[in-house]
Amino acid sequence: MRFEIDFLNLKFRAAASEAVSFRVCETAVSEKSKESSELSALDLLKQQDRESAKRALAARLFRNGVKQEDPVDLSYQVREGERVEPITPESGEALEIYRHSTAHLLAAAVLDLFPGTKLGIGPALLDDPKGGFYYDFQRDDGGRFTPEDLPKIEKRMKDLVKRNLEYRRCEMSKSEAEKKFAEMGEPLKCELIEEKGGDTVSCYTIEGTPFVDFCLGPHIPSTGKIKAIKLLSIAGAHWKGDESRAQMQRIYGTSFFTQEELDAWVKQKEEAERRDHRKLGPELDLFSFSDPIGPGLVLWHPNGALIRKVIEQFLDGELYRRGYGFVNTPHITQSELFHISGHLLHYRDVLYPEMKDLENEQVQYRLKPMNCPFHIQVYQSRQRSYRDLPQRFAEYGTVYRYERSGVAHGLMRARGFTQDDAHIFCTPEQLKAEIFGCLDLVDFIFRAFGFEYKTELSVQHPTDHSKYLGSDEVWEMAENALAEALNERGLHYQRMEDEAAFYGPKIDFKVVDAIKRTWQLSTIQVDFNLPERFEIEYIGSDNKPHRPIMVHRAILGSFERFFGILIEHFAGAFPPWLAPVQAIVLPISDRFNERAVAVERELRAVGHRVQTDLRSEKIGKKIHDAQLKKIPFMLVIGEREAEGNTVAVRDRVRGDTGAVPVADFSARLSELVRTRALAT
Amino acid sequence: MRFEIDFLNLKFRAAASEAVSFRVCETAVSEKSKESSELSALDLLKQQDRESAKRALAARLFRNGVKQEDPVDLSYQVREGERVEPITPESGEALEIYRHSTAHLLAAAVLDLFPGTKLGIGPALLDDPKGGFYYDFQRDDGGRFTPEDLPKIEKRMKDLVKRNLEYRRCEMSKSEAEKKFAEMGEPLKCELIEEKGGDTVSCYTIEGTPFVDFCLGPHIPSTGKIKAIKLLSIAGAHWKGDESRAQMQRIYGTSFFTQEELDAWVKQKEEAERRDHRKLGPELDLFSFSDPIGPGLVLWHPNGALIRKVIEQFLDGELYRRGYGFVNTPHITQSELFHISGHLLHYRDVLYPEMKDLENEQVQYRLKPMNCPFHIQVYQSRQRSYRDLPQRFAEYGTVYRYERSGVAHGLMRARGFTQDDAHIFCTPEQLKAEIFGCLDLVDFIFRAFGFEYKTELSVQHPTDHSKYLGSDEVWEMAENALAEALNERGLHYQRMEDEAAFYGPKIDFKVVDAIKRTWQLSTIQVDFNLPERFEIEYIGSDNKPHRPIMVHRAILGSFERFFGILIEHFAGAFPPWLAPVQAIVLPISDRFNERAVAVERELRAVGHRVQTDLRSEKIGKKIHDAQLKKIPFMLVIGEREAEGNTVAVRDRVRGDTGAVPVADFSARLSELVRTRALAT
Repeated sequence: MRFEIDFLNLKFRAAASEAVSFRVCETAVSEKSKESSELSALDLLKQQDRESAKRALAARLFRNGVKQEDPVDLSYQVREGERVEPITPESGEALEIYRHSTAHLLAAAVLDLFPGTKLGIGPALLDDPKGGFYYDFQRDDGGRFTPEDLPKIEKRMKDLVKRNLEYRRCEMSKSEAEKKFAEMGEPLKCELIEEKGGDTVSCYTIEGTPFVDFCLGPHIPSTGKIKAIKLLSIAGAHWKGDESRAQMQRIYGTSFFTQEELDAWVKQKEEAERRDHRKLGPELDLFSFSDPIGPGLVLWHPNGALIRKVIEQFLDGELYRRGYGFVNTPHITQSELFHISGHLLHYRDVLYPEMKDLENEQVQYRLKPMNCPFHIQVYQSRQRSYRDLPQRFAEYGTVYRYERSGVAHGLMRARGFTQDDAHIFCTPEQLKAEIFGCLDLVDFIFRAFGFEYKTELSVQHPTDHSKYLGSDEVWEMAENALAEALNERGLHYQRMEDEAAFYGPKIDFKVVDAIKRTWQLSTIQVDFNLPERFEIEYIGSDNKPHRPIMVHRAILGSFERFFGILIEHFAGAFPPWLAPVQAIVLPISDRFNERAVAVERELRAVGHRVQTDLRSEKIGKKIHDAQLKKIPFMLVIGEREAEGNTVAVRDRVRGDTGAVPVADFSARLSELVRTRALAT
Repeated sequence: MRFEIDFLNLKFRAAASEAVSFRVCETAVSEKSKESSELSALDLLKQQDRESAKRALAARLFRNGVKQEDPVDLSYQVREGERVEPITPESGEALEIYRHSTAHLLAAAVLDLFPGTKLGIGPALLDDPKGGFYYDFQRDDGGRFTPEDLPKIEKRMKDLVKRNLEYRRCEMSKSEAEKKFAEMGEPLKCELIEEKGGDTVSCYTIEGTPFVDFCLGPHIPSTGKIKAIKLLSIAGAHWKGDESRAQMQRIYGTSFFTQEELDAWVKQKEEAERRDHRKLGPELDLFSFSDPIGPGLVLWHPNGALIRKVIEQFLDGELYRRGYGFVNTPHITQSELFHISGHLLHYRDVLYPEMKDLENEQVQYRLKPMNCPFHIQVYQSRQRSYRDLPQRFAEYGTVYRYERSGVAHGLMRARGFTQDDAHIFCTPEQLKAEIFGCLDLVDFIFRAFGFEYKTELSVQHPTDHSKYLGSDEVWEMAENALAEALNERGLHYQRMEDEAAFYGPKIDFKVVDAIKRTWQLSTIQVDFNLPERFEIEYIGSDNKPHRPIMVHRAILGSFERFFGILIEHFAGAFPPWLAPVQAIVLPISDRFNERAVAVERELRAVGHRVQTDLRSEKIGKKIHDAQLKKIPFMLVIGEREAEGNTVAVRDRVRGDTGAVPVADFSARLSELVRTRALAT
C-alpha cells in the first residue's frame, strides 16, 4: 500500500523532500465518500461563485440543510445531501483556521531546521496579548531555542509560503495512527490520540515537509494563502500544563490576512506593553502583591488607594443623588446563608474552603463570593411596604473567589476584589424606570473616565425556555422593560439570544479603552431566582404580600480590575481629578525652598494634592523625576517667580506653558477637577 | 464540741433563731492564732483611730511590712508581725466587699422566705449595667421566682439590716466542710468546695439566719452597715454557665453606701436603657444582625452606613491633611504572614479557624485579626530611605476575631469590625513629633463628637523588665518621647506602671459620654517587636540599614463599637452633621406637596440630606413620626409658607421656631454642618 510506505518514510524526517501524497491516502481510507460524489468542496464553491471560491480558506458544511458545527477543508469530498459555503478572510471562522494553519507552518519550519524535534500542541489564539498561535516543542538534541532562532525560523516559514505547499488531510484507524506516531518517536502525540481520538483519526501534513500532526482540521488549502507572519517570543511550558510532565518550549507567533493588520497589531502590542499595569504598578508605587500573603490578594499603596478613594467619593455623591442607600455587610457568613441562596450549589467552584466554627460542629463559615444574599438580609430585616420600594442598596463589597493560581493576572483577575455592587428591590411596574436609571448612571460614569462603550442585551432562547427559571410572562415583561429602557436611552445594542443568565435577562457593557481594546465591565441583571429562594416580600397596596423583582448591577465591576484597566487606559498619566499628586513644586535652588513650601501650603489649603521636591538636585533632574511619576503639573520656582508670587507651570504633556500667579493656577486646577477634565 | 452541734443545727434552716456562734467556732479551729495575739483587727484599728475604725468595713493586712493581697474581716485575729489598716467606704476595695456582703444578705432573706432553696454562687459586680451583685438560686419547691417576689425579698433584706446581724466566719477542714454541706443538701456547694477548697476552708453565716456559704470573705461586720439596697431583676442561669448543668434563677440587685448614690445609679441605668443601641438600632433602622449570617456580624443599614460614611469622610480629610497615606489590604492571608508576625503564637485564641488551600496542602489561609502585618508588607514592597520617613499608612481595615458567642454584645463586641487603623514607621528622632501628631488628632476627633476624655500612659515596670521586649535604652527613649509629647500637649494623664504592652509603651484614651460613662477607645502604641520580626529597614543618611520604630494607633477603635457608643451618647438624636436625614419637609396637606418637593430639591442641590413626607396624614401625625425618627429639623409648609417661599422650622428639641426663607434655613444648616455643631 502506497500509504503504508509513505507514512513509514515520515519518521526519517531529514528526507523531507520525499513528499507524502495524502490525497491518495485519503482516497485509500474513505472509499465510501467517493461513492456519493466525486466533487470537492472547492469544486462546488467554484460552481457557485468563482470569485469567492478563489478567496476561500475552508468551507462551511450543511447536511440536509442543517449547518454542521465543524467547517471542512476545501478538499473535502462533498456527499449527497450536503452543500457548502465559502469561508473567506471576512468570515468569523476564518482567523482561527488561518492561524491554526500558521501554527502547522511553524512546526514544519522547525522540523526542517531542527530535525528530530518532538511536537506538543499548537493551537490558534484569537484574543491573547501573547500572540495569534503557539506551538510547543521538545528539542531532540538537548538544545534550547533562543530569541536568535526566531528570525531564522520565521524566514524558513516565509520560504515555505513562497513555495505554496499543500495542506493535506489523511484519515486512518486509531490503532494505526498510534502505531505510526510511535514509530516516528512522538510519544506525546500518541498520548493525545489515545485520549482524544475516535475510531477514525485524522492527520495533517504540509506537502514537501517532514511535518505530520494528529489534528481535526480544517486547514487552509496551501501555504501561499498566508500573507503576514511574525514570530514573537519563546516561553517555558509543560506538557499539558502539568509541572510534573515533560518540560517544553513554546514559540509564540501571530499571523494576519494583511501586513497592515499585522503592523497595527504589533504597534498596539508594544503600546499595551508600555501601558501594562503590572509594569506601571510598581513604577508609580500604586499597588503590589506579597509572597507571604499569597497570590491574587492586592495591596493598594497610598498612590493607588488615593485614586480609589477619589473614585469612591465620586460614586458616593452620584449614588446618594440617585437615591441609593449605602450598606456595609460582613465578609464572612455561616454556610447556612449560601445554602439558602444556592451559592453552595451553583458557585461551589469559586468558594474558598470552609472554616469550622470553634463552638458548634454543625456550623461552618465561608468567605463571601458575592454580596447579594447579604443585601437580601438587610431587606428582610424589617417588613417592607410598596411605599418603601424601590429600595436601592449599594456597597463597595469585597468578595473572595478562589481562582486557580495560574489564572491570576495582576489586578485583572485577583482572588479578592471589591465590587461597586448594588441591588435594587422593586415592583414589576418600577422595573423599566430602574433599568433606565442604571443606564443613565453607567453612561455618566463611563464618560467621566473617557470610555466609549458597547451594549449587549442578553435574553432567553426564543423558543426553548427549559434552562431558564421563571414564567414566560415574567420573562417577557422583564425583557421588554430592558429593551424599552435601552431604546428610550437611545442606546444601540446587540441582542444576544439564549445568552441570558438562568435567573433572568441582563444588559452587559464593554468599554473601549484608549488603544481600542474592549473590556467587559458593567452588568445589569434581573433576578427572578433569589427573591424566590429567600421568599422576600413587600406588602402591596392590596395589603397582601407580593414578591419584589431584584436587580443586580455593578458599574465598574471591581475596583481592582477597573483600576488595572484605568492604569492602562491612561498609561499611568492620570487626569488631574484622579492623579494622586496633581502638582509638584520645584524650587530651582535651595534659596527658593521656603517659597516653594508656602506655595504648596497655599494650594493644599484649597484641597489640591501637592508635593514639593526639596532635594538639592538640579532642576533638570527634578523635572525628569516628576515626569517619570507622571505628575500632571510641575510648578517651577526661581528668582522671578519667587518675587512675583507666580509659578512657571510645566505641563507633563506640553512642557513649559509660562508663569502665572499661584491663584490663577489654583483656580485652573480646581476647574479641571470640578469638570473631571481628561486632559491638562 | 460546741461547733459540731451548732453546725449540725444549720441543716434545720427553719430553726433560724438558734444562732451559731462562729466566733467560738473560729476559736476552736484556729487555736494557734490565739497564741500570738488576743486582739482582733477591729481592736487594733480602734487603738489607731477610733473614728475611722467606727466606719471600717474590713481591714487591709500587712505581714512583715508587706501588704497581703486579700483583705480580712474586722474580726480577724491579728498575729505577731502583722498590722492592719481600715477599709472604709472611701477605700478602693470597699464596694466589692460591701456588695458581696449584700449578696449574702439576699441569700439569707431568700432562705428565710423560701426554705429549702439551694444556693449557687453570689458575687459582687462593680461595673455591670445589670447590677452590683447577684445570687443564683434553685428552688426546692419547684416554684420559680417572679418579679412580684422581689419587693418581698427586698423588704426582708431591709428587716435583717435593721436587726444589725453579725457576719461570722468559720474555718474547718475540707472533708468536714464537704460533709456539712452534703448534709445541708447543697450538692453544688460541695462541688465548689471539692474544686476550689484548700486543706482548710472558710464559711460565712449571718447571725440569726439559716444562711451558710462556702466563701473566702472578707465581709462587713454586720448587716447594719448596709445603707441602700435595691433588687433589680430575675434572669435565667445555669450552674457554672453550662447549659447541660442545672437550671437556676439569678436575682440581680445592687447596693450603695448612700441612698443618693443608689438613686443616681438607678436614674443612670434607666437613661442607659433608654439609650441602649440595641434598642435604638432597629427603631432608627441603623443596623441589624442576621441569624443565617451568624452572631457578631453586623449589617449596617442605609441610615447607619450613611453616618459611618460621613465619619469616614471626615477622617479622610483630616488624615490626608496630616500626611497619612491610605492603603487597602486583603482580609485574608496565607498563614505564613502570621507565623512571621507571631499572631499564630500570641493571638491564636482570637483567630478564626484556618481555610485549607485547594491547590497546596502546605498552605492555609486565615482571616486577619489585625492589620499591622499587612501594612508592614506595604512598607516592605520597596526600599525606604530616611528621606521617605515618616511613612504613615491608614486603613479602615475590617478584622475578624472569634469571640465566644456569649460574649458578643450588640455593636460593642462584634466578631467582625472595622478599625480606623494606622501604622507609622519613623526614626527614633521622629517618634516624639509623631506621638504629638497623634495626640493632636485624637483631641480634634473627640471634640468633634463632644466627648471629654481621660488619658493613661502605660510604661514598663520600674525595675523588673523581664517580661518586656527591647533594650532599656530604647524603652527609656520611647517612654520619654510619649511623656514629653503628653506634657507639651498639656494633657493630664495617669502614669500606669507595669501596664505597657510587652512590645512597647502606650497611651490609652477613655472617653466620657453624655451620661458620664467611660469607654476605652483610642490607643497609641509603640512597637519594638514587629519591626524585629519582619526585619524592616530604612537606609539612613549614613547609607546603612537601620530599623525604624513602628507606632500603632486607632482613634475611634472600631467603627462598630464607636457607632454603638455614639448612638447611646446622642440617644439616637444625631447632630445635623451626622444625622442620616437632616431635615424632613412636611406639607400640611396634599395641596402643598408640589411645593414641598421643590423645597426638598432646592436643599438637596446644595448637598443637604432631606426627605419629604407626602403621605395623606394629618400634620400632627407627620410631626410625631419625624420626632420618633429624631430628625433634627421639620420644615412645615402650609398656605403662608408656600406663598412666601418660606418654611416653618420645627426643631426636634425646641419645637416651632418660626418661618424663615428656604435659603436662610439652608445657610443655617450648612453652617451647622461646617462647624460640626453638636446642638441644632
